[in-house]
Amino acid sequence: MGYRQLVLTLPVLGALVFVIGPIRAADTELRAQALSIFRPLLKNTSTTPDSVASRQVRLGRLLYFDPRASADGTVSCARCHQPALYGADGLPKSIGAEHRVHPRHAPTVLNAAIQFVQHWRGDRTSVEDQAMKALVAPPSYGNPSYESAIARIKAIPGYPTLFAQAFPGQTDAVTPENWGKAVGAYVRTLVTPSPFDGFLTGDDSAMSTSAQAGLRAFMQIGCAGCHNGAGVGGTMYQKFGVTEPYWNATGSGTVDKGRYDVTSDAADIYVFKVPTLRNVAMTPPYFHDGSVATLPEAVRVMARVQLGRTLTELEVRDLAAFLESLTGPLPDDFATIPTLPTAGGGR
Amino acid sequence: MGYRQLVLTLPVLGALVFVIGPIRAADTELRAQALSIFRPLLKNTSTTPDSVASRQVRLGRLLYFDPRASADGTVSCARCHQPALYGADGLPKSIGAEHRVHPRHAPTVLNAAIQFVQHWRGDRTSVEDQAMKALVAPPSYGNPSYESAIARIKAIPGYPTLFAQAFPGQTDAVTPENWGKAVGAYVRTLVTPSPFDGFLTGDDSAMSTSAQAGLRAFMQIGCAGCHNGAGVGGTMYQKFGVTEPYWNATGSGTVDKGRYDVTSDAADIYVFKVPTLRNVAMTPPYFHDGSVATLPEAVRVMARVQLGRTLTELEVRDLAAFLESLTGPLPDDFATIPTLPTAGGGR
Repeated sequence: MGYRQLVLTLPVLGALVFVIGPIRAADTELRAQALSIFRPLLKNTSTTPDSVASRQVRLGRLLYFDPRASADGTVSCARCHQPALYGADGLPKSIGAEHRVHPRHAPTVLNAAIQFVQHWRGDRTSVEDQAMKALVAPPSYGNPSYESAIARIKAIPGYPTLFAQAFPGQTDAVTPENWGKAVGAYVRTLVTPSPFDGFLTGDDSAMSTSAQAGLRAFMQIGCAGCHNGAGVGGTMYQKFGVTEPYWNATGSGTVDKGRYDVTSDAADIYVFKVPTLRNVAMTPPYFHDGSVATLPEAVRVMARVQLGRTLTELEVRDLAAFLESLTGPLPDDFATIPTLPTAGGGR
Repeated sequence: MGYRQLVLTLPVLGALVFVIGPIRAADTELRAQALSIFRPLLKNTSTTPDSVASRQVRLGRLLYFDPRASADGTVSCARCHQPALYGADGLPKSIGAEHRVHPRHAPTVLNAAIQFVQHWRGDRTSVEDQAMKALVAPPSYGNPSYESAIARIKAIPGYPTLFAQAFPGQTDAVTPENWGKAVGAYVRTLVTPSPFDGFLTGDDSAMSTSAQAGLRAFMQIGCAGCHNGAGVGGTMYQKFGVTEPYWNATGSGTVDKGRYDVTSDAADIYVFKVPTLRNVAMTPPYFHDGSVATLPEAVRVMARVQLGRTLTELEVRDLAAFLESLTGPLPDDFATIPTLPTAGGGR
């Protein structure tokens, strides 16, 4: 039974399926195909509670939420990657220290660590590299130098001791590299398995019929050619706008040459990292420039400019249902905010 | 036994006290005196889970954490009243929409509702009034008008329904007044009983000996003349700098005429609301201008400019220990962040 036939027959089959349960043969075949393209997401549980690694995670969690390391005292990682907005900030383009506008949209921090590079243009190699450089990036923390950033952190009673405990054996552990390592260690724990992973690992009822139809379409239409792996993305670069200029389809009218501005290689014009689609339903607006407000419209634009295809409304609905199955619950240590060392509480 | 003798004898008594327990007579007398000045803080548990009131609280909690109602999309209540910084922001003066600097320091939102008026100059009558007016205050949410603020809220799928459920029977429930009521309803739940309340309600071991000595000093020296009631403050106005100009003692050099600028009454020159001292140890820097970085220095300044008194270092230490006993655990619904309605997630 083909995809289109299955979809068209579904209303008729509805009551029957409800009685006899999901169509197991179709589930099994769909799962097998999906497992050839995607991988289930596993929570990182590698550190023991009293290990150095877990001390780095705990320190990183404090640093993640602490705005006092920024030039104007208002920017923490959580400013552009807010728990309340699923690790993003809801803005087309983020706004950092001293109200400087970031050139691109803030992607969610959730599952960021499993991507092969960071940032839309891949100019950050890892979450550790990203975190460290954020300290001195003008539209982020905005510190004029690493020295001034580190001086801010050292001025907060509590942090020097916590750094020393998390990085034992170092004479002066409060360094930009260790800041990046600690924040990165925390960010690596921010992984969100979702109903899709339940389906991949054998639970037929984890995804709705619509989401399963969407998964099938996602693979058949070609989306999975780029959005694959455990992150459903985050494994490669790709040109945005294969069949037509993206800025026409999104309506932004604004051109960003993407990775070309990093490499000066003509092959990289309009090339961006293919982002993970994990939690994409929770993190509008969409694309590197935040130019599209809704998930269905983002799906339509992608099919049009990457695959030259105009989707039916049923395809859009099913694809959106599949993408919604990539929404996992927030990690406890992200939804719950730590209490920071108090500034100046000492004597 | 007098206060000073008691303190001086303590090192000798230490081991004995450890064996025979706290000095019960002194506790009882201290508690009786304290209960004539202060009141224990009780958690607000007045709403039933399915009531209209609890729907207002739940809606208010979402609104509290949502930056999308602000002019530049970066300011929520949580921007200047962060859970990680105990309901404050760690800055001398807050920074709001479009990087506008607030004229005064952000006090903690915790227990704010029990104060007799809001803001340092009392120009907000209640937490509801404060929340509503924040929508259009330039250094806060920065919206040019209530209309534009409400338009932003209505544009987020989910909120119109939540407002209608929280304010039943209204044709159009998304109003500035209801925004203020919902946020206020949530803020009224942010109450933090602390070891001091344990002591007041009969637990002799809730406060350390030093904190008990600090409580005694707090009443004897005269601090409790203004800082009293359930909030240990928040019950009256008072001139800041009774015995000498505050800006000399704090070192700020900057003069704020306080409530005079609201009332134009000469009696109100340098008059401010006496703030609650609940959680004061967790919310540096201090005073309306954030001009003092540490709690002990804030204690010294207050004794000097309000009471004309130079404290001994032991008095400062004990007073700080008492003030630390006013730190209560964060309410669960404040330390844990809600997931907001997604913007544009609909179809």
